[in-house]
Amino acid sequence: MGERPFQGRVQYVYSANAALEAPLFRVTIFTPMKITVAWIGKTRNAAVQSLTDDYVKRLKQYSEADGLSLKDEAALLNLYGRDGRSARRWLVLLDSRGKQLSSEELAQLIRRHQESNPVPLVFAIGAADGFSDELRRQADFVLSLGRMTLAHELARVVLLEQLYRAFTILKGHPYHLGH
Amino acid sequence: MGERPFQGRVQYVYSANAALEAPLFRVTIFTPMKITVAWIGKTRNAAVQSLTDDYVKRLKQYSEADGLSLKDEAALLNLYGRDGRSARRWLVLLDSRGKQLSSEELAQLIRRHQESNPVPLVFAIGAADGFSDELRRQADFVLSLGRMTLAHELARVVLLEQLYRAFTILKGHPYHLGH
Repeated sequence: MGERPFQGRVQYVYSANAALEAPLFRVTIFTPMKITVAWIGKTRNAAVQSLTDDYVKRLKQYSEADGLSLKDEAALLNLYGRDGRSARRWLVLLDSRGKQLSSEELAQLIRRHQESNPVPLVFAIGAADGFSDELRRQADFVLSLGRMTLAHELARVVLLEQLYRAFTILKGHPYHLGH
Repeated sequence: MGERPFQGRVQYVYSANAALEAPLFRVTIFTPMKITVAWIGKTRNAAVQSLTDDYVKRLKQYSEADGLSLKDEAALLNLYGRDGRSARRWLVLLDSRGKQLSSEELAQLIRRHQESNPVPLVFAIGAADGFSDELRRQADFVLSLGRMTLAHELARVVLLEQLYRAFTILKGHPYHLGH
C-alpha cells in the first residue's frame, strides 16, 4: 500500500468495452481528507492537552485535521446533527460497546471512506457518562478501543494515536511495525 | 464489593461442622499488595512521563506501587526471571495477542491474585518490537489492551490507568462509572 498515493479520491477509467472489467488507468485527485476529533468537556490535564496537540500536529502531515473541545453533547448535535442545516459528515462515536478494529482495519476504514465518500470524518469522544441513545442512533459507526473502560481523556489520546498510525500504515511509513 | 476491605489476604474461618459451607466470619490481614509496572526503554515524551508519575502516585493510595524503566528485556529477565536467584513474582506481559479483559475482569484478577497468591505483581510493557518468545514463555499472564497496536509509551499510561481503575472498582470508589 505504501507505493500508492492516498490523499485523494480515486477514479477508475474504463474502456468503452464493457466486457473489459479492469480499469485502464486510475486518476487520483488530491483532495485532502478532513478529520475532526471532537470531545465533550474541557481538558483538565496539561499532559493530556500536550499529547492531544502533538498528535493533531502529526495528523496534519496527512490530512486536514483538527481537535475540537465541545461543551456538551448538544453542541456536537448542533455542529454535526442530521437536521438538514448542518454540513454533511460521517460520524464515528467512541464507545466500548462498539466494534473493535485492529490498527490495520481502522486504516482500511479510512481509506475506503476517503475513496467512496469523502465528506469530513468526525470522531467523537463522550464525557465520563458516555453518549445518549439519540446520538448513538445518529452515528455512522460506533468504534470501541477495547473491552476496558478508559478515562475519556486517555481515550482521546489513544484515538489520535490510532488515526496517526492509520495514515502511516496507508503511507507505508515505518512508524507502524505491525505488532 | 465496595464495603469490603481489599488490601490484605483473606482467610475464611469455618465451623467444625463440615456440612456448613458458609464461613462463620472472615479475618482480613492487611498486607499491602506490591505492584510494579516495568517498561523497556527511556521515556522520551515529557507528557507521558507526567501521566506515568501521576498514575503511579494514585496507585500508591491502594498498593505498594512503583514504575520501573529498564534498559532492555535482559534487564527484566535479570530482575524477574525464574532462575532461582530472583524473588518470586507473578509476571503479566502486555501484548496485543494476549487476552483482553474488561476493567472489572482486571479488578477481579488482581483481587484473586491478592487473596490466593500474594507475591509481587509485575506488569511489563515491551519496546516497539515487543517481547521475545522466551519471555512470553515465562509470563504468568499475557494481557491485551485491545486489538489495536498502541505506541508502547501510551500502552504504559493506559495500563496504569486500568490498574488504578481496578483498585477503585474493588474499593467501590466512584471513579469507575461502569461504562
